Amino acid sequence: MNDLHDEDALVKEIARHFLPNRGRKLRLGIGDDAALWKPKPGFVTVLTSDWFLEGSHFLREKHPPDSVGWKCLARAASDIAAMGGTPRCFLLNLALPGSATAKWLKDFLGGLRRAAKSLDCMLAGGDTTRGVRTLISITVIGEIREGQEILRSGAHPGDRLYVSGTLGEAENGLRLLRRRVDRVNPQNSDMRKHLYPEPRVELGRWLAEKRLATAMMDLSDGLSTDLPRLCAASGVGALVDPDRLPALLGMDWQSARQLALHGGDDYELLFSVPPARALLLPAKFRGLRLTKIGEITAGRGVRIIGKNGMPEKLAAAGWDPFRQTKQRL
Amino acid sequence: MNDLHDEDALVKEIARHFLPNRGRKLRLGIGDDAALWKPKPGFVTVLTSDWFLEGSHFLREKHPPDSVGWKCLARAASDIAAMGGTPRCFLLNLALPGSATAKWLKDFLGGLRRAAKSLDCMLAGGDTTRGVRTLISITVIGEIREGQEILRSGAHPGDRLYVSGTLGEAENGLRLLRRRVDRVNPQNSDMRKHLYPEPRVELGRWLAEKRLATAMMDLSDGLSTDLPRLCAASGVGALVDPDRLPALLGMDWQSARQLALHGGDDYELLFSVPPARALLLPAKFRGLRLTKIGEITAGRGVRIIGKNGMPEKLAAAGWDPFRQTKQRL
Repeated sequence: MNDLHDEDALVKEIARHFLPNRGRKLRLGIGDDAALWKPKPGFVTVLTSDWFLEGSHFLREKHPPDSVGWKCLARAASDIAAMGGTPRCFLLNLALPGSATAKWLKDFLGGLRRAAKSLDCMLAGGDTTRGVRTLISITVIGEIREGQEILRSGAHPGDRLYVSGTLGEAENGLRLLRRRVDRVNPQNSDMRKHLYPEPRVELGRWLAEKRLATAMMDLSDGLSTDLPRLCAASGVGALVDPDRLPALLGMDWQSARQLALHGGDDYELLFSVPPARALLLPAKFRGLRLTKIGEITAGRGVRIIGKNGMPEKLAAAGWDPFRQTKQRL
Repeated sequence: MNDLHDEDALVKEIARHFLPNRGRKLRLGIGDDAALWKPKPGFVTVLTSDWFLEGSHFLREKHPPDSVGWKCLARAASDIAAMGGTPRCFLLNLALPGSATAKWLKDFLGGLRRAAKSLDCMLAGGDTTRGVRTLISITVIGEIREGQEILRSGAHPGDRLYVSGTLGEAENGLRLLRRRVDRVNPQNSDMRKHLYPEPRVELGRWLAEKRLATAMMDLSDGLSTDLPRLCAASGVGALVDPDRLPALLGMDWQSARQLALHGGDDYELLFSVPPARALLLPAKFRGLRLTKIGEITAGRGVRIIGKNGMPEKLAAAGWDPFRQTKQRL
């Protein structure tokens, strides 16, 4: 490993040092949305840990502190949801610069508390210290019944590929936020989705309980970046139909399509469902749209139907100079 | 809360936002060494999360990367030991600056792996990203049988006060390290204790299983800083006999005593034992000295026997401009 700028290489280097990372009780370590820790037969604890750093994941001058508080927990909880698990408690490591104001902290904690209440996920502890910048590290512990966990690796050729909600909203919200002189417009639903994403815990749990999904992950870095990860974990490919993407309305189709394919931070669920089980999927789950966007294929690549109706390679373009790619160990 | 420079005020502010932080399954949240998470009757999961930051907790030019790797896990595992628990797995959040070399990372991971192997504690996952400096956040998940957990809050007046090992070694090792031109002398046991502390997991577990200790914590910030925390949690005071302190040999007694009272980073266990149970304590546990250093008292203050034989107030002086005080949520 020579290039530390390559995040995938960094994760691989870490994994190489710790393999094998499974054992009697640690059922799943590196390589999925969260680890599985099995304290007792029939019962699995789900663990995940996330960075949320000033300058990398949020901008002090752009993001209201209560959205920083909400989002740092919501995006970690989304990893639990992506396994079909239920978040139960979390640990907060917080480093604040000397320049942080009491007002910033109060608002941050207010947002965090609202997220914790909304998710029914309790603060269990953590660590505080001084930092040059504001640093947040969140660990969420969740539960899942044994055998119900949905990994990234279970997709089979022929499975239908689904996403929840609308794709591209959060990215569009970020663009609006960056353009505005005043910081935030809470009336704008795209901006709200960027600032206060809602992890799809209930949907994930329902899919797990009903055993509808064969593979699942949350969309944090954009479909074109995340779908290849699910496919690689499952050893399959995928074919996406761009006309089916649940993209934004109210803008030209080309822009909406680009946002849906490459926009990050939506925290919607991406999941595969066998054809026979797909018949059991409703069009909406508790008001949340479920959309078939394509199929799992036997080949290894991720492709998209092009203008001429022929499959083309889907290039990953989820990266954003502000929002760094999230790399799960 | 107006002064964010006051770490205790920061912790209190966070706690205020999240009280009550206990529930059906979260048995212990803010305020002790680690949280207790009880997934099933009879069984408790122990959770703890720690910062280890360049500039605050280690110095890139002074600390070898393998000691950074060892120590970041060891000190988090020490919090599990301080409950009587056994570390089982951990999550690593790692941010590296673009200037980090592959050699630094390799050595860091080598030290971390050695600690993980020594503790039989598996890497379960985590998150990596870019950082301005090297940032490490570690979460350790441990186990303990229900009812065996040893909190900070169980000490009673008349209990004998014990510490494991020798106090002041790590602080002396840090001083040697700062003085040296060449970075590290692995032959020096004090320097080794600063660089590669060994959490007292076996001792903690044994005290828990035998139900010998009424209260326990690990010594991270120095006896004069940590003992008042145990006393405050238990609503008691303590009287320390300085002549009994297991201080360093090979230096003048006054210096050794100061190091034993105020030196940090030893990760020895401090625990209280009822008089009748104290008879069951051996002088050594698997080669590790156990020393009675005083008693728990009914008053609220922490005192030390002075030159004239009269109790004097023991002032907390564990703080060090390099080693920041560790504040547990």
